Formats: sequence, structure tokens, C-alpha cells
Amino acid sequence: MPVNCSIDVELGERSYPIVIGSALLGGGFDLGKHLAGEDCLVVSNETVAALYLERLREDLEGRSVQSISLPDGEAWKTLDTVSRVLDSLVAARANRDTTVIALGGGVVGDIAGFAAACYMRGVALIQVPTTLLAQVDSSVGGKTGVNHSEGKNLIGAFHQPRIVLIDTDTLGTLPDRELSAGLAEVIKHAAIADAGFFAWLEENIGALRQRDADALAHAIRRCCEIKARVVAEDEREHGRRALLNFGHTFGHAIEHCQGYGEWLHGDAVAAGMMMAARFSGLPEADIARLDALITAAGLPTAPPAAGADAMREAMGLDKKARGGRLRFILLRALGDAYATADYDPSRLERVLEAAG
Amino acid sequence: MPVNCSIDVELGERSYPIVIGSALLGGGFDLGKHLAGEDCLVVSNETVAALYLERLREDLEGRSVQSISLPDGEAWKTLDTVSRVLDSLVAARANRDTTVIALGGGVVGDIAGFAAACYMRGVALIQVPTTLLAQVDSSVGGKTGVNHSEGKNLIGAFHQPRIVLIDTDTLGTLPDRELSAGLAEVIKHAAIADAGFFAWLEENIGALRQRDADALAHAIRRCCEIKARVVAEDEREHGRRALLNFGHTFGHAIEHCQGYGEWLHGDAVAAGMMMAARFSGLPEADIARLDALITAAGLPTAPPAAGADAMREAMGLDKKARGGRLRFILLRALGDAYATADYDPSRLERVLEAAG
Repeated sequence: MPVNCSIDVELGERSYPIVIGSALLGGGFDLGKHLAGEDCLVVSNETVAALYLERLREDLEGRSVQSISLPDGEAWKTLDTVSRVLDSLVAARANRDTTVIALGGGVVGDIAGFAAACYMRGVALIQVPTTLLAQVDSSVGGKTGVNHSEGKNLIGAFHQPRIVLIDTDTLGTLPDRELSAGLAEVIKHAAIADAGFFAWLEENIGALRQRDADALAHAIRRCCEIKARVVAEDEREHGRRALLNFGHTFGHAIEHCQGYGEWLHGDAVAAGMMMAARFSGLPEADIARLDALITAAGLPTAPPAAGADAMREAMGLDKKARGGRLRFILLRALGDAYATADYDPSRLERVLEAAG
Repeated sequence: MPVNCSIDVELGERSYPIVIGSALLGGGFDLGKHLAGEDCLVVSNETVAALYLERLREDLEGRSVQSISLPDGEAWKTLDTVSRVLDSLVAARANRDTTVIALGGGVVGDIAGFAAACYMRGVALIQVPTTLLAQVDSSVGGKTGVNHSEGKNLIGAFHQPRIVLIDTDTLGTLPDRELSAGLAEVIKHAAIADAGFFAWLEENIGALRQRDADALAHAIRRCCEIKARVVAEDEREHGRRALLNFGHTFGHAIEHCQGYGEWLHGDAVAAGMMMAARFSGLPEADIARLDALITAAGLPTAPPAAGADAMREAMGLDKKARGGRLRFILLRALGDAYATADYDPSRLERVLEAAG
């Protein structure tokens, strides 16, 4: 496993590389050549800016760099915060050649990306994800957006970055709980697309939680490879890309019932994957394997008691609803997912009642 | 000139028709077949909804139709109003198969279009423009967005409609001043692309102001043909599409100095075209022809005295600024425009001083 590697997301003229390595930030990587022009606005949060903004500035020496620091946390992923970023772009007299650089986790990336999509109907975007969740999932593929009080990610845009720069060293400062939340998305990639990777995770989940650099680099790379392929096949989620939502229909409902920010997104996805696996009717042995891996990752395997009614209500607004009937991502087996709206409602009821 | 015609905007899988005719609204046109699903949200304003919403509902019989009425006027073209439309979509439990229908002028179309672009990262949009300005310009081509307090249309998205339905009868209720504002964009299309159409306008400007149905239908059709061709060549305004901004760099500065809503957009574009024509160095005879046509359309040929400094300041934020230097759309002759950032700054100064 090389320390540095690059994976291409093939999207014609919107193709871009995902560069993965250690010591990238402040290490002489030529980020400047990926800018649209001389000017950039770095969007970060209080926590991450204190740790990594100066290193990023070193990589942008000679460019005009402004920055804005957002409050930290999912509760701030709102249209109001996007409006603040847009105000900063206006105040910086940003033009069409300005590049927005998202330095932080999934919340920063989603907000900064959406602001870049909207400012002057779209300016260049660079993603520098600093959490495991953002590195393996949210920074890749161009989904940007914010929450509405009534539903997660209801407002947004598809806006692909010019490059995703993943410095695995940033995981050294990530709190344990957020590392685990990222592992939920790692497990998701394995569960939907790669039984071999799932088995590898079962072997290496301890090393990942101990932040073994090689293990983390391998997991990030494999997730990015899977995601890059799926996004290249179906950028706008008309079909196959929906598989990446495994665990998310239940997960979003859990988050909604909990209020954003109480449970981490990864926690909700973990519990949601367990519900989806049961709904899939997987053999008990496979459900036990998923349960054991999620537990070993330090994640919950069941939602907090919200009540089946509250979950049902929350799912009515989920983005995956089509013509009144929900579309679910289910598993044929570990490593093999499919989408369907053709399910037995009474089975769904049993999963909801058991979880609620 | 047939009463009904259809022009295609050729954009591959995003191609769509512009249907132009009289007695279309409430006249049995099958709008339903252009919906993404059974549900739609009509976005209109107080004035237009009172006149045409019921007729539109007749064309959507059997579908689930909800509606929201916005306050009337450019001053409301803000992110806050978009947020209100998004709230309505959420309240209506809109899903990915919902269609947003914009029924109104340019402001309604820009707001509704941007909301459709953002909701669930993009739902279907239908434009039913009811002002001349919207019919000849803003409803076609997919530009959507809102103003920022510091600049016009700074926040937005490209989002193409599924159909543009133009019922020319709606012009019967349009106030004279708004008809004139629309004529500014009609003159713009002629000035940038069609000397013959410019001559036709000189002959028929009186008939247009008297709302001669055939003359209006001809002018709308010719503008839509010109715009459809330009948009098909350059959807995202990397090049040729910028020609449609003739008069708008100066015009936006005029609007900014006046405060949105005081001058109509068309008024500002008219005065802006005169400034751009002078900046182009057109022969005096051609400037006199443009001056006469704009005057005959009931439009101003000079901006209100704002001062050259205020204009200069406002232009610094214009979207067309690239690398600190403004890009202008100029005329080689009436009917022949080009874009350039290579100009004599002292000539620009003279135009600004003369206007200010």
C-alpha cells in the first residue's frame, strides 16, 4: 500500500482527482495549480482552522487567501450559514475566478460546497476533508447542501470539486467518537459493494480504531475507489448512486427524531444499517457479522427509543420517497446491495416496531 | 406569422420547447404531460395569481396543485423569499417527482427557478412567463437566482425548465411601464444579433406599444429564436452567451445605485445599452437610431444622476468582472455584438463621466 495515491472520478470535463497521502498539508503539495484564479476563500470551522489553516496557507503561498470560520456542528448546517459564506464572498469581492476551499468535516464541506455552487451560479470548489467521514464519503461526488428544519439535506446542489485533497495525518486530531462515525460510512461501502473489503474490516477494525496509518489509508482508498466508480456511473443519482444511501433512509429518520447534532450522522447510519439489514431479510449469521463489526467500530446497533410513529412520520419526508412509496436500499448479501420500492409493508412495520 | 408556434432549445437530454400562442392558459393545452409526476407547486405573485391562477389550474385538472403567492416586485428577489418557497415545498411534502411552476414575471421565474434548483438538489421546473420581459428573456435559458444586497443576481443556479409556455394574451393586463421594460430586452436581442429585426422594430414599435397581437407574437418569437440559439451554443456562459448581457454591465450598476425596485430592470438596461453603444464607438447615426428606438419604446436613454464614482464602485462587483478587469459587450454595428476586456480605460471614463 503506497502512502500516496490518486484516484480519478471520471466525469468527462468535470473529472477530478482524489489525492490521498500523509504530510500533504503544508508539505509542498502544489494546490495552487488547481485554483481557478489567484483568489480563494477558505471555509473552515473554529476547531479545524486552529489546527490546519496555517498549513493550508503555506500550500497557497503567493495567492490571495481569505478565510471564514464557521461554528462547529451539524446544527449549523442551515441556509442561514450558507448566507454568511455568500456574504463573505461578496465582501471579498469574489468573482467567477475565485475558488472556494472547504477545510473541515462533512458539515463544512456541504456548506462551503453549496455556497460555491450558488455564488455567481457556480465558482470553483476544492475539498480538503479532515474527518474520516468526509474523507471516505461526503467530500467525494459533488453532493452539497444543508438541512431544513423538517428534513436532512433537503436543500442543495450537485457541484463537483476540482480536487479532493485527503491528508490522512488530520485523523490524528479527530476525537474517537468522530473516528467511529466515519467508520460507519466505511462499513457501508463494504456492505453495499465489496464482501472482501467487509472481511478485511472484520480483521482490521481494531487497527483502524487505534489509528494505524496504513490501515486507515487502505480503508480510505478502498472507499474512494468504490464511491468514485458509483458516482462516475450515475452522477445525479437517477439509479445506481442511490446504493450509497444504504442505512440512510432509516438513519435520516433517526437523526430527525433525535434533532440534528445530538446523535452524529455516523451513529444514525450505523443503527440505520442494522435496521436495513433486518429489513433485507439477511441470514441471521450475516446480521450477526454486521452487528459485531458495527459494535467493534464503537457504534450503536439500534436507535434510541423514539417510537415507531415518530420514525414513520420522519420517513414520509425522506428524499427517497417516490410517488408516496419509499425506496429502500437492501442487501442480497453482505457486499451486494440493490434498490427497491417493492417490499412487504408488514415487514417494514415489524422492523420499525422492533426498533421503536 | 402563425398564432401558435414552438421553438426548441437544443440542450441534449435537457432540451425543451418554448410554446408561443394566444388563448393557451385555460385553453386546453396539455400542460400535465410536461409534469414530472402528479404533484406541482405553482409559485406566483399576488397580482398575477388573481388574474391567471385559476386558468392554469384548469390546464392541470386531475393533478395535485398547490400554490404560493409571493409579494410583487424586484425588492423581494432575495434568498429569504427563496427560503419561503422551500418552506412551502417542504410543507407540501414535495418529493423528487414534484414540479415547480413559475407563473409570473422575471422575479417570480428567478425565485421559483432557484428554489426548484435547490430543493432536493433539483426538481422539475415549468416557466409560464406573463410579462414581456420574462417571455422574451428571463424565462428562457435556465438562469435562476436572486439578488444580494451588494449585487444583482449574485446568488443562483443554472436550472433549465421542461417547457416555457408563453400565452401572449397575458400581455393584455400588463401595465404600460412594464411593457416598455420588456421592449428594452427586445431591442437588446435585435441590437446584438439581427440588424433586420432592428429595422423591423423601428417600423413596428408603435404597433408593439399598442399591443398589436401579431406584432407582439412576431417580436417574442424572434427573441426566443435568438436566445434559444445562443443558449444552445453556450449554456453556462463560458463565451457567446455573454453577448446577451449587452447593456447589462452598465444596467446593473444603474440598478444598484438606484436601489432595486425603483427603476425597472428594463429601464436600466435601456440606459445601459445607450452607454454601451457610446462606449462601442458606433457611428453617431447608429447611436441616434438606437436612441430614437429606445425613446419610442417609452424608455430612458440616460441613467439618473448617480455620479461616476458610484457607478464605478457598483461595477467593481459586477459578475462580468474577470481578474479585476471588466468584460464588456460592445457593438461592431447594430445587430453585431462582441465581448472584450481589451478596451481604452479613458474611453470608459468618458462614458461614465458623461452619464454620471
